[in-house]
Amino acid sequence: MDLHYILNTFFTLFAMTLIIFMVPGFAMLEAGLVRTKNVTAVLMTNTMIYSVASMVFLLWGYTLAFGSWENDSVSKWAAFLFQMAFVGKTVNIMSGGVSERTKIFPLTLFTIAMAGLIYPLAVNLTWGANFLKGTFLDISAMHDLAGSTVIHSTGGWALLAAILVIGPRRGRYKNGKVRVIPASNVPLVALGAFLLWIGWFGFNGGSVGSISSKAAADTVALTILNTNTAGLAGAIIAMIVLYIRYRKLDLTMILNGALGGLVAVTAGADLYTIYEPILIGAIGALLVMWAVPFFDRHQLDDPVGALSVHLINGIWGTLAVALFTDVSWWAQIKGIVLVGVFAFTLSYLVIRIINAIVPFRAEDDEQLEGLDYVECGMEAYPEFKQVI
Amino acid sequence: MDLHYILNTFFTLFAMTLIIFMVPGFAMLEAGLVRTKNVTAVLMTNTMIYSVASMVFLLWGYTLAFGSWENDSVSKWAAFLFQMAFVGKTVNIMSGGVSERTKIFPLTLFTIAMAGLIYPLAVNLTWGANFLKGTFLDISAMHDLAGSTVIHSTGGWALLAAILVIGPRRGRYKNGKVRVIPASNVPLVALGAFLLWIGWFGFNGGSVGSISSKAAADTVALTILNTNTAGLAGAIIAMIVLYIRYRKLDLTMILNGALGGLVAVTAGADLYTIYEPILIGAIGALLVMWAVPFFDRHQLDDPVGALSVHLINGIWGTLAVALFTDVSWWAQIKGIVLVGVFAFTLSYLVIRIINAIVPFRAEDDEQLEGLDYVECGMEAYPEFKQVI
Amino acid sequence: MDLHYILNTFFTLFAMTLIIFMVPGFAMLEAGLVRTKNVTAVLMTNTMIYSVASMVFLLWGYTLAFGSWENDSVSKWAAFLFQMAFVGKTVNIMSGGVSERTKIFPLTLFTIAMAGLIYPLAVNLTWGANFLKGTFLDISAMHDLAGSTVIHSTGGWALLAAILVIGPRRGRYKNGKVRVIPASNVPLVALGAFLLWIGWFGFNGGSVGSISSKAAADTVALTILNTNTAGLAGAIIAMIVLYIRYRKLDLTMILNGALGGLVAVTAGADLYTIYEPILIGAIGALLVMWAVPFFDRHQLDDPVGALSVHLINGIWGTLAVALFTDVSWWAQIKGIVLVGVFAFTLSYLVIRIINAIVPFRAEDDEQLEGLDYVECGMEAYPEFKQVI
Repeated sequence: MDLHYILNTFFTLFAMTLIIFMVPGFAMLEAGLVRTKNVTAVLMTNTMIYSVASMVFLLWGYTLAFGSWENDSVSKWAAFLFQMAFVGKTVNIMSGGVSERTKIFPLTLFTIAMAGLIYPLAVNLTWGANFLKGTFLDISAMHDLAGSTVIHSTGGWALLAAILVIGPRRGRYKNGKVRVIPASNVPLVALGAFLLWIGWFGFNGGSVGSISSKAAADTVALTILNTNTAGLAGAIIAMIVLYIRYRKLDLTMILNGALGGLVAVTAGADLYTIYEPILIGAIGALLVMWAVPFFDRHQLDDPVGALSVHLINGIWGTLAVALFTDVSWWAQIKGIVLVGVFAFTLSYLVIRIINAIVPFRAEDDEQLEGLDYVECGMEAYPEFKQVI
Repeated sequence: MDLHYILNTFFTLFAMTLIIFMVPGFAMLEAGLVRTKNVTAVLMTNTMIYSVASMVFLLWGYTLAFGSWENDSVSKWAAFLFQMAFVGKTVNIMSGGVSERTKIFPLTLFTIAMAGLIYPLAVNLTWGANFLKGTFLDISAMHDLAGSTVIHSTGGWALLAAILVIGPRRGRYKNGKVRVIPASNVPLVALGAFLLWIGWFGFNGGSVGSISSKAAADTVALTILNTNTAGLAGAIIAMIVLYIRYRKLDLTMILNGALGGLVAVTAGADLYTIYEPILIGAIGALLVMWAVPFFDRHQLDDPVGALSVHLINGIWGTLAVALFTDVSWWAQIKGIVLVGVFAFTLSYLVIRIINAIVPFRAEDDEQLEGLDYVECGMEAYPEFKQVI
Repeated sequence: MDLHYILNTFFTLFAMTLIIFMVPGFAMLEAGLVRTKNVTAVLMTNTMIYSVASMVFLLWGYTLAFGSWENDSVSKWAAFLFQMAFVGKTVNIMSGGVSERTKIFPLTLFTIAMAGLIYPLAVNLTWGANFLKGTFLDISAMHDLAGSTVIHSTGGWALLAAILVIGPRRGRYKNGKVRVIPASNVPLVALGAFLLWIGWFGFNGGSVGSISSKAAADTVALTILNTNTAGLAGAIIAMIVLYIRYRKLDLTMILNGALGGLVAVTAGADLYTIYEPILIGAIGALLVMWAVPFFDRHQLDDPVGALSVHLINGIWGTLAVALFTDVSWWAQIKGIVLVGVFAFTLSYLVIRIINAIVPFRAEDDEQLEGLDYVECGMEAYPEFKQVI
């Protein structure tokens, strides 16, 4: 009765479903983090990304990444769905970091480029068909279970390129000082972060690729355990540092610490012992806390902290595999560098080209008015009186 | 070890759980779409519907639909739970469309009638015991995988009957003009829509009825893939049309476009090739965009667009099976018409009878004050200052 | 291919994931119930609890409870994850009931004590290694499927101890009168309650411990069915009572009625026929409605009703097993009393000790200002104008 096939298909569908919870996860996280006047636009952007990126991946991106839809050990439809659940995430990372000043139409064009070209090529080189196989640029030896590099860094590099082109939000930096712009709806931030956390179980657990043997079942469970532990450690270390320094527990930073830990453990969650993710997640959160002001000092304006969470920890997480297991440093570093150069360069080019045709950046008066009105013609909370 | 039985039971419980996410899904969607003063009442209505409809189905509705609880291939308790997860949805469709002016007590009586009589009879004729088997009115040949007709149209016809009896919201239509009443909390709308979307994977995937063979596993995965694709296409086509026409991306319309696509693919998601749902979902969204102003022109006031999403696309989705597969047109049309006549007539009668005893419609001054205070004695957001 | 092992591991991971949805579930429920000025602090507390309690359980609590990580029938990592998903709940119950006046740092210390000592010992005596085995105090004969006593009463007793030490919120009781403090965000309350409800399927269903035989699959499905039915009955009876008495449907009370029913069915959901949970859940909701004003009369201030939902119904639910099945009354009563004496005494001692070092109670002016500012340095909804 093809039991392996059935079990793996069912398991893959389960994992995929968890990942789809990251769609409302990202949407709520970002809707909570931005100002009220940009909430609908952010939700619209998230809806666009899931729809357009998934559709492009269905139409040609998946084939570009993997060469073929055929599959022996799992239903090919389930395998596609699982991979499709990933693709929008790279754009989410990018779009979140340029929110509050970026227009949806050029973002849509970039979504097509990411889901139809940049991400499929990154996957092709790592998990996929590998068109550079056997060449000097072959990076398929990199161990990246669920995408610290392939997804999080790719999205992060695209974001860096986008920030360089689009610039900071109007009024964010004045006379070399950073103007603090607080999250407008903290419960949504927390809800989004926890939905992302749960989605990560599917992301990393499902990336093991099989549950149909005792060893595979153990690896899946260990992977989910390690994933969770890194998130826990990230939140805890952020709490401790913030409490000692400021006696104030900045919840959005703590949640970003947890997310940083989750990104960091993603490359090797299947390989670690159960205590190593504590260190990996803790370092991940420390990196987030260091990187958020670092990027602000360089006026790289990132309202949701995506560079710190995804790019920095994508790199750290990929290196951690070499640090804690016997995977080769060379394989990891080569993968990080090659994907980085590739993703940044291509994203930068694509963003510049799109920007020349349809500018990404909303005008100052549009930013002042808020993108909800400009882009969607509606307010997120029309009946609540606003401060100011 | 009865492996088929175990796998199917586990899978059915998984699918059922996804559908239960539609309970907060509908609740959040509707709580976001109505005005602040009616939010608690809408949440209360959703809580009532899940509780009362499920309980009535447990007590007698399920037996009326299926004749027996016995089951060979799956635990009878799991089979019940899966079917129970459906029943409230028909009432959700109806109650959402008459929100902001309808009282909860008569709605409760209607919920009993729907879950205890109307819906079980609709199921009896289609998926169930079929008391008209072999007669001219036998419609069991209709292919309706997960209820484009049985659930969505049934709920939609009941809604149409309810709107005819209850009338529009106070002040909605003045001198032949439609007063626009914007959604009060857009993040809740998006959250609700995405929870519904995820629930649909369980709805349609679980309706395949088995995962315990290679073919069944493939069909489940294909069904979920096709379901998702129609939702994607619905959102995309709505985006394109709105952007071209208005340069404004009305998020609530776009999400309704996606939901329309999801309803449309529900009848035949197990039968389509992977590209057909693109067309089915796109047409579904176009129908939503056409139907929303159409119903308003006829002063059929439907604050959440449920007629357009569920009734119109329930019909379109059932026809699409005949259009894209070799299922007979006659079987589909006969099913649509018979269920339609039956559901509309019986719902209309029941609503009229209830209305004569306990009027559905809240008085104008109650609508002005808001149903939260009138029905629940509490506000949804008592600490937020309201505009006006 | 070790099919039992694979199926049980997969099923345990599925159940665990559902329980993790209770993390946002509790967070949203409590964030909706407290006043706007305390929302961020409540979310922070929930984040802290999940992180710290789970980490402590990983480091030593689990070993203290079960003696060993080894496992034959399921991956030991999955078994740990499932148990880990429980531990924070006991602290959630406690922290929710003392919210709006309790500081996070002493709560963190208590979380360590609960997850590292009190709860592991309660588990040790009931589901775990049982260090009192064979003595007069052996309570392992108590039937408590998923923790009406072990989790809900343990958390409830800890809450009672905490309320006695910390006292009521400033201004809650004045001249013997109770000042009503309404929920600040009702949609979040409903969302949280439904996420908890869904989490309960994993909690109780997963506690069956196996799905890898026909009988086990049936028991899992029956358990989930019974769990759900008790929740339905709780909501319905609360609706009926409130409507008859006040003609107003107090949604937060009705949701607490449902949660009370869910707690009550938790001890014996695997043993009941499908109709008994109706009575168990209905009584559970009646107890909530009786207990909420009862505790207020005794000035035991519990903003979320956790004593009524978890402590009272934890006891009732454990007794219900004896009432409806042939499990011995003596076993149930002995378990309730011993866990109660143990959990209350130890919690009280620990809370007093912590309180002597770091006071739990926020000063009156801090409460007036709101814990968000005091503890987190940020507001939950900084852009919404507040009433007053």
